[in-house]
Amino acid sequence: MRASADQLRQIAVASLEQRGAPRHNAQLQAELLVEAELRGLSSHGLQRLPTLLKRIERGLADPRASGICQWQRPALVNIDGERGLGPVVMMAAMNELASAVSSCGIVIAAIRNTNHLGMLAYYAEAAAMAGRIGIVMSTSEALVHPHGGTKAMLGTNPIAIGIPTDAKPFVLDLATSIVSMGRIHSHALRNEPIPVGWAVDATGRPTTDPDAAKLGAIAPFGGPKGYGLGLAIELLVATLAGSEMAPDVRGTLDDTDPATKGDVLILIDPAAGAGSTAALTCYLESLRSSCPAEPGRPVAIPGDGSRTRRAEALSAGVEVPDALFHKLSALAAA
Amino acid sequence: MRASADQLRQIAVASLEQRGAPRHNAQLQAELLVEAELRGLSSHGLQRLPTLLKRIERGLADPRASGICQWQRPALVNIDGERGLGPVVMMAAMNELASAVSSCGIVIAAIRNTNHLGMLAYYAEAAAMAGRIGIVMSTSEALVHPHGGTKAMLGTNPIAIGIPTDAKPFVLDLATSIVSMGRIHSHALRNEPIPVGWAVDATGRPTTDPDAAKLGAIAPFGGPKGYGLGLAIELLVATLAGSEMAPDVRGTLDDTDPATKGDVLILIDPAAGAGSTAALTCYLESLRSSCPAEPGRPVAIPGDGSRTRRAEALSAGVEVPDALFHKLSALAAA
Repeated sequence: MRASADQLRQIAVASLEQRGAPRHNAQLQAELLVEAELRGLSSHGLQRLPTLLKRIERGLADPRASGICQWQRPALVNIDGERGLGPVVMMAAMNELASAVSSCGIVIAAIRNTNHLGMLAYYAEAAAMAGRIGIVMSTSEALVHPHGGTKAMLGTNPIAIGIPTDAKPFVLDLATSIVSMGRIHSHALRNEPIPVGWAVDATGRPTTDPDAAKLGAIAPFGGPKGYGLGLAIELLVATLAGSEMAPDVRGTLDDTDPATKGDVLILIDPAAGAGSTAALTCYLESLRSSCPAEPGRPVAIPGDGSRTRRAEALSAGVEVPDALFHKLSALAAA
Repeated sequence: MRASADQLRQIAVASLEQRGAPRHNAQLQAELLVEAELRGLSSHGLQRLPTLLKRIERGLADPRASGICQWQRPALVNIDGERGLGPVVMMAAMNELASAVSSCGIVIAAIRNTNHLGMLAYYAEAAAMAGRIGIVMSTSEALVHPHGGTKAMLGTNPIAIGIPTDAKPFVLDLATSIVSMGRIHSHALRNEPIPVGWAVDATGRPTTDPDAAKLGAIAPFGGPKGYGLGLAIELLVATLAGSEMAPDVRGTLDDTDPATKGDVLILIDPAAGAGSTAALTCYLESLRSSCPAEPGRPVAIPGDGSRTRRAEALSAGVEVPDALFHKLSALAAA
């Protein structure tokens, strides 16, 4: 069925407030889920909410917490997320860093003990809209096999980068897996097969069955390079946040364990740099108008597609599976 | 022919000193080139030296300069490289950042007006050997087409990440192109065709001719994700360093123009983090011993192959094309 963003937001907020989330925290968490739906990233959308609500009921997520900051150095803060909601703790971290990035030029927050962040683009875009370069990294359960291996040993380890320009900010958001596990769950939920090359099953053989893939491992993107990048994020986040390595991570997909992944946020003040945002805007325009590989299909900049889909969905509404909508409505009433 | 690392180093140092490089700077530049040869990365090895020497002769590279630092904030420095040799300016930057990273936790240097850095792994490894997390990014001439495009609009925009562990450091070094342009030059120099998918020619059509590829564009690695990452590096470096965007970059492959690309170095102090390097070492070992896709071919960690090749080449010597060796010997004597 088709629902408006407002309708979905109200249902999500109500279900979170029902379980003790203060209004502001409920709104922020709902915002992350609905923004993902609006941008066509249903893997990070409302399908995540029932698990999250169960986690709150079980004390695995504390909707009131916003994290405890321990500044180790003037430009480096460690944050214990106190089992808080991912978006609440991350946006609190971004606020906490705001004055330090102005004074230091670059700052970093390493966060442990917090729930799923959802779509990283949200934070990278928020940083860029505030005039900062934002780099966000996160880890996850072991879902991805190494290049040259078949066992799930790495997280999907996404990275998002937001950079202010004179026009809309540049916003990149990519999982270092060939797809996110959320997207495999999406296929499973919709009973659609996955393409060859996305995943191996539990025995290490290629599969097109999303349910078999959930028990196996996803491929890294781009062969050894994507594997290397994902592994670098795995190590960097764990060593700074003090979070677990992928095989010991729990709590972003289940409703049984505390969340043991880690997150990192780096902010840089481009006003302290020697370049100009006008030059970026001009360059991005030249890229958009450069010769396309397929006639009539212009070169895209990361973030362009999301923005278009968002604008469309804001007017036309969001397509949500009937079963999910009814489940969420029931959870909001309960 | 086969030459020892010492022999190659002496030739390179002599040719640089002949052209006015102080001993220490000549040794550092020679080190970068020979280390690339030792690791099997001939694209970033001695084939670069004749052009560099010509650049010194023409005043496009100043072998005495080490850059002028302007600290904009306690954790952010802008560096004018004064046309210095890439390795000399970058290692001076690393020294300049040493005390700031201890005090601030994270620091960043943005560098313009400096010559080709060579193999980025060198700097990432140096940072990690000094106990820091090192992230190095660099831009280049427009050599790479955007995903969905055919025109060379982006640099090969490499990134290297070094992370200390209890054992050998983790060292990742990747170009965001499917290969480096240096490797295409290597194929051209050796008259070897390039694989399908690496590049398009000047008309936008796929090619296996390295000379045609030099006039066309290289593909980004990993489709839209690698393209997005390369573009993020393009924007991030230019906005901080004040360097040119790829279509206006000159001076890393030619002997006619000043170098207008940019470089970024980020250092982070893992001692200020909440994790342990012992956990990283243990995890990397579990990765190496995890189930391989091909029996008998264990999973590799980025940097493993380089280290093995280096150890072998140190004892067996380095294979250098005869013509290049004779050219370099002549340049060292001239």
